[in-house]
Amino acid sequence: MRNILRKIKPLNYLLLAFPAAALGSLLHASPIFNFVVACLGLIPLAGLIGESTEELAFYTGPKIGGLLNATLGNAAELIITIVAIKAGLLDLVKASITGSIIGNLLLVLGFSVLLGGLKHGTQRFSRVHAATNATMLVLAVIALTVPSLFNHTLTGAQLPTRTTEAISLGVAGVMIVLYVLGLLFSLRAARPAPSALVVDLPAEQPQWSMRTALIVLAVTTAAVVWLSEVLVSAVDAVMAASGLSEFFLGIILIPIIGNVAEHLVAVQMAMKNKVELSLEIALGSSLQIALFVAPVLVFISLAFGNYLNLMFNQFELVALVAAVIVAALVSSDGETNWLEGAELIAVYIILGVAFFFLP
Amino acid sequence: MRNILRKIKPLNYLLLAFPAAALGSLLHASPIFNFVVACLGLIPLAGLIGESTEELAFYTGPKIGGLLNATLGNAAELIITIVAIKAGLLDLVKASITGSIIGNLLLVLGFSVLLGGLKHGTQRFSRVHAATNATMLVLAVIALTVPSLFNHTLTGAQLPTRTTEAISLGVAGVMIVLYVLGLLFSLRAARPAPSALVVDLPAEQPQWSMRTALIVLAVTTAAVVWLSEVLVSAVDAVMAASGLSEFFLGIILIPIIGNVAEHLVAVQMAMKNKVELSLEIALGSSLQIALFVAPVLVFISLAFGNYLNLMFNQFELVALVAAVIVAALVSSDGETNWLEGAELIAVYIILGVAFFFLP
Amino acid sequence: MRNILRKIKPLNYLLLAFPAAALGSLLHASPIFNFVVACLGLIPLAGLIGESTEELAFYTGPKIGGLLNATLGNAAELIITIVAIKAGLLDLVKASITGSIIGNLLLVLGFSVLLGGLKHGTQRFSRVHAATNATMLVLAVIALTVPSLFNHTLTGAQLPTRTTEAISLGVAGVMIVLYVLGLLFSLRAARPAPSALVVDLPAEQPQWSMRTALIVLAVTTAAVVWLSEVLVSAVDAVMAASGLSEFFLGIILIPIIGNVAEHLVAVQMAMKNKVELSLEIALGSSLQIALFVAPVLVFISLAFGNYLNLMFNQFELVALVAAVIVAALVSSDGETNWLEGAELIAVYIILGVAFFFLP
Repeated sequence: MRNILRKIKPLNYLLLAFPAAALGSLLHASPIFNFVVACLGLIPLAGLIGESTEELAFYTGPKIGGLLNATLGNAAELIITIVAIKAGLLDLVKASITGSIIGNLLLVLGFSVLLGGLKHGTQRFSRVHAATNATMLVLAVIALTVPSLFNHTLTGAQLPTRTTEAISLGVAGVMIVLYVLGLLFSLRAARPAPSALVVDLPAEQPQWSMRTALIVLAVTTAAVVWLSEVLVSAVDAVMAASGLSEFFLGIILIPIIGNVAEHLVAVQMAMKNKVELSLEIALGSSLQIALFVAPVLVFISLAFGNYLNLMFNQFELVALVAAVIVAALVSSDGETNWLEGAELIAVYIILGVAFFFLP
Repeated sequence: MRNILRKIKPLNYLLLAFPAAALGSLLHASPIFNFVVACLGLIPLAGLIGESTEELAFYTGPKIGGLLNATLGNAAELIITIVAIKAGLLDLVKASITGSIIGNLLLVLGFSVLLGGLKHGTQRFSRVHAATNATMLVLAVIALTVPSLFNHTLTGAQLPTRTTEAISLGVAGVMIVLYVLGLLFSLRAARPAPSALVVDLPAEQPQWSMRTALIVLAVTTAAVVWLSEVLVSAVDAVMAASGLSEFFLGIILIPIIGNVAEHLVAVQMAMKNKVELSLEIALGSSLQIALFVAPVLVFISLAFGNYLNLMFNQFELVALVAAVIVAALVSSDGETNWLEGAELIAVYIILGVAFFFLP
Repeated sequence: MRNILRKIKPLNYLLLAFPAAALGSLLHASPIFNFVVACLGLIPLAGLIGESTEELAFYTGPKIGGLLNATLGNAAELIITIVAIKAGLLDLVKASITGSIIGNLLLVLGFSVLLGGLKHGTQRFSRVHAATNATMLVLAVIALTVPSLFNHTLTGAQLPTRTTEAISLGVAGVMIVLYVLGLLFSLRAARPAPSALVVDLPAEQPQWSMRTALIVLAVTTAAVVWLSEVLVSAVDAVMAASGLSEFFLGIILIPIIGNVAEHLVAVQMAMKNKVELSLEIALGSSLQIALFVAPVLVFISLAFGNYLNLMFNQFELVALVAAVIVAALVSSDGETNWLEGAELIAVYIILGVAFFFLP
């Protein structure tokens, strides 16, 4: 993701949304205005957090750098969801976990494969490597969906709250252990890394000093925290005004905001005929959210007293399972073409259509 | 499918069912008699439509010919289902969409692999090519099942009718776009075609003049329309007399009638050790029904005022998912043996047993 | 499994549990005591039945030997479940069928891959061979789950008992035919056997005379029958005292007891860098239970008047599907590493956590 803002200059202009949000907040502008500028402002900031993390990684060496990437790679999403948990918007948080995963697997991967395939025809890559990542992803999603499938019993009843809490905490614990094991495995393995948890983008020279990187990281993080609060506090008013559900905002809008930067980098890689890197970004980001962000949020939510469980609703389950099956199939045969990209995007649109019409 | 009637002579005798149906219809024979002769008469006519389409393709050139095959390849099934929609038998139509897909994937492919394997031992084919088709098939079935999975909420409730209509139309639109993209992809690709949408049977000389082909196409189409109406108008009486459900007729009987010709060609190919062609026929026909016939029926139904949605019942969903998983697995490892054929047929029988006993 | 007791000496000491159980039974000891010693005693006896079967196979020749292994390979589990059917513990029986399959696929395979991978790094094996077995396994589990998926309709209703009985018997019949076909296929195929139904462990010399093998088989079988009755008769008291459900005992405890021996052999093979044999043991044992033990129990239950159907509850279905997907993925890419082993075990723990908290 490095150099993203320098390469994709237009994103920089979105930073202007930040003073607009500050102004809007001071002048008590309409919540719709605040929501829109907060969304726009978060897009480049999410990219900047990623960039400063990668700059830092140059100075910390590959091991700690890998760890930094692995934990801060989805920092913007982590911050937005923590703020939303604090505000009690638990359905929004769970929907945005699902939305991030399906967005990465269907939209990020879909546009990469589509545009890469249109430019380069059939693109080939190591089947074994991609199959390993697909296996991990399927495992992660099984871990994420099993508790929910248990919860919705087929007779329509639901498990008691205490049971779902206990199961969620237990599962979250197992997932974090698995995530740490996956990191160990990646960091120990000889290059090329056989796990997408540590994405291995082409090495370049650092562009910032360590000091600059640390300052950018601190400032952007603070800005993301503040914009997240603006965004979250406007959610109720936006739902009332637009008729969109908390679920739709969570599963479609929030994840798109958090992933625009990853999106652009993945597509760029595919258009440079490095579709394997696009796959790593899309699968790696999904893995991080499933195995790290989601369970961490379960534990963090305990601190706020707004208990977040891992019981997804059936629409989220269907979307997760569909996205993982499709992404695993596309990535496991060792080659992609533009039609597969169109198919991935088609599945996303079908899910989006259905989500839009849900009451 | 070309030359099918000349190669499989016995099917020609079934054309005698046509005058029998005419006589039965004139003399107001019992509905059971009319149903049976309509079924028998449709078998060779479905084959003849396919044959005249392929003859026409010789004169139109490969591109328009591919398009003709892609749209008229399941013409008989399309006509039967349109007549049934007009008569308001929407459950029969949805069941026959499911039944055609599982019939192609389990029965057509199963007998091809079983008999081909018994004659030739393990049969090998290009893994990559088959995997591409399997991926498309899985995508098509996901597109087909997602709306239904959304509809049956886990609490037993159903979405409002307006929501299911809107979702069905949206999904049908996406599927037709995907189908057109798939055709473009197939027609542009260098041979061998990497998509099963345009099945590439061995080239032969045309047997009919263009004029003959057009006349046969027109006459058989008219005959299929008329026999379909005989069949559909007898359905109620047959259900009452036999105790079979509309669902069982739709999912088992109708698809077998429409697919006998494809069945025989696919098995012949496997016995000539060209199991890859059997795979293309079975997967290609399933893809056509999922991505073209089903969404087209959704739009056509609007004209009749009998609105057809894409919400399948759970038995259809289980059958579709089971069939696709099994077919994808069998076709994706690049080789088949008679045991895999037996396994495909076993899954069909298990589904059939369950369907038979459903109340 | 041959020579297991000689190689894993510590298991022999568990035979001391047998006289303890005898004593406990005579002196009417507490049911908890009887349950524990029966469990402990069954572990080495299950291993001994397997060993004597394999010794016998040396004298009967490979074909009948393969048949013996295929039918008696899970003899201990078959006996325990028959005794439980006689006692009317049908939920325990169905849970232990599920538990045996997921135990083999996740725990046996997981520890083999984990420990083998830690010792040898990435372990490679024939992808095609493993894919064939994975395909059979998926088919077996589809056959096992389809009737259940039909039973739990999405509106929460259940099919009438007569319907579930008819479907279960029909499906069980198809499964046994498929099992016999699979055996035929394995026994006819040139080595290496392309089906895991006949596991092909490295040939060694027989250690016992045929007479010894027969006597050991008869004695251990009788002992297993008797210990099974001790165990089953104590189940009610154990549930009351421990608060564990019949479901938890069936899905976690009983299968572990019956599979300790297979467990140890599979892990040993992986640590000798023969991970393909570990895969065959785990997949082969699961196949046997799904395609042979389960349908045989359906027919045997008719004799006892305690009718056993094949309708699993949703927790069993989720566990079966999750286990099969994960095992198929891990085994189908032709290589394993310790992280994949950890992932398999993690899925087992997640399922176990959920089962433990179920009311």
